Amino acid sequence: MNDAETCLQEIKDRVLAFAKAREWEQFHSPKNLSMAISAEAAELMEHFLWQSPEQSHQDMQQAPLRAKVEEELADIIIYAIEFANMTGLDISGSIESKMKLNGQKYPVEKAKGNSAKYTEL
Amino acid sequence: MNDAETCLQEIKDRVLAFAKAREWEQFHSPKNLSMAISAEAAELMEHFLWQSPEQSHQDMQQAPLRAKVEEELADIIIYAIEFANMTGLDISGSIESKMKLNGQKYPVEKAKGNSAKYTEL
Amino acid sequence: MNDAETCLQEIKDRVLAFAKAREWEQFHSPKNLSMAISAEAAELMEHFLWQSPEQSHQDMQQAPLRAKVEEELADIIIYAIEFANMTGLDISGSIESKMKLNGQKYPVEKAKGNSAKYTEL
Amino acid sequence: MNDAETCLQEIKDRVLAFAKAREWEQFHSPKNLSMAISAEAAELMEHFLWQSPEQSHQDMQQAPLRAKVEEELADIIIYAIEFANMTGLDISGSIESKMKLNGQKYPVEKAKGNSAKYTEL
Repeated sequence: MNDAETCLQEIKDRVLAFAKAREWEQFHSPKNLSMAISAEAAELMEHFLWQSPEQSHQDMQQAPLRAKVEEELADIIIYAIEFANMTGLDISGSIESKMKLNGQKYPVEKAKGNSAKYTEL
Repeated sequence: MNDAETCLQEIKDRVLAFAKAREWEQFHSPKNLSMAISAEAAELMEHFLWQSPEQSHQDMQQAPLRAKVEEELADIIIYAIEFANMTGLDISGSIESKMKLNGQKYPVEKAKGNSAKYTEL
Repeated sequence: MNDAETCLQEIKDRVLAFAKAREWEQFHSPKNLSMAISAEAAELMEHFLWQSPEQSHQDMQQAPLRAKVEEELADIIIYAIEFANMTGLDISGSIESKMKLNGQKYPVEKAKGNSAKYTEL
Repeated sequence: MNDAETCLQEIKDRVLAFAKAREWEQFHSPKNLSMAISAEAAELMEHFLWQSPEQSHQDMQQAPLRAKVEEELADIIIYAIEFANMTGLDISGSIESKMKLNGQKYPVEKAKGNSAKYTEL
């Protein structure tokens, strides 16, 4: 599998099949999955706690760390996809809508080179 | 866009173009993006803080909450995808590898109907 | 040490001395410490991912889990206290002010038995 | 109230009384409180997402941000204290034990000026 050829639905199906085979849907409420996403996100973050932002770029060039980070990122997205599975959300459509909204909140002229929140632009 | 027809690469490209147009790549270090994913994951979770897992299923049937949750989920995945963009990770491949590993940690016979961590199966 | 006899300043001093002895103040920026608090909070949460709220009460009666949870809670508060150390905040005063504010947001008559956010009371 | 004169038990009592008056103990399971701590920790972190660690120090000199950050820190500690209330944990004792453990994991000779995890010292 690779990103150029893989549709989101294909990953959704695999993730759902994995959970179904283990009868895990009973645990996969929106509440519990939101906790799981958050817990995995923290594990990703933990690799970069004390580094400067610049160092975190360099750290990603080290093979062992990179491999671990890759696993954490996968875990986050797997749970996010399972959240979409269990709630019937279309991820691509949601992202398209949200990016349209973000484009209005952060028009290029105002947001260029600026990391301020839209409420302070 | 919808999940049946959208490749991950297509979303990756859109997310990257959005950041490039705003010259935001300077802020998008692995460290900062890991924080952003975690912050968005918490916003998703906040909708379900005091509900029981069962209620969280029902809450997702209410249109206004559902719309907000959809936005939070999109934000999480957008930042996760931008993390992959900035670090050169292939999401589909990472998920495929991680699910293989998860399958070994959680064999169907042992994990069926069981929410225990693999270290305690 | 026990909560009936221990002032916050005493814990603040111990936490600061620990960091100073290790020359860790250079890593303890508000940004980094906010990440550390969040990462520890996620570790606490991880113990309760798939349990119902009721089960989480019962789980706390099991000695091995209780011991681990106690460590996670300590870690959260240690980093929160170090955040106050590094930024010169008075915790007791901050809590007193915040609870006054919370009392206005959640007046007893409206909030009694109700878990809704103050914006929806 | 100030940290030099305030015992943890005094804050515990106030936080518990606040919850009792609103009949909120029914919502304050270990699971739910762990989520609340994590959600508040993320709100603190959000103020420092795109800043460098150095900038985050300077940001804390700005009165409006400082006031907001103070509120977020208070929220984290309030929920952590309520977690201790609902589970019968002694915070000071837990911190004392955890710091002893941390001292063994991070002996001064090895950890001085070093941000590596104890598993990599």
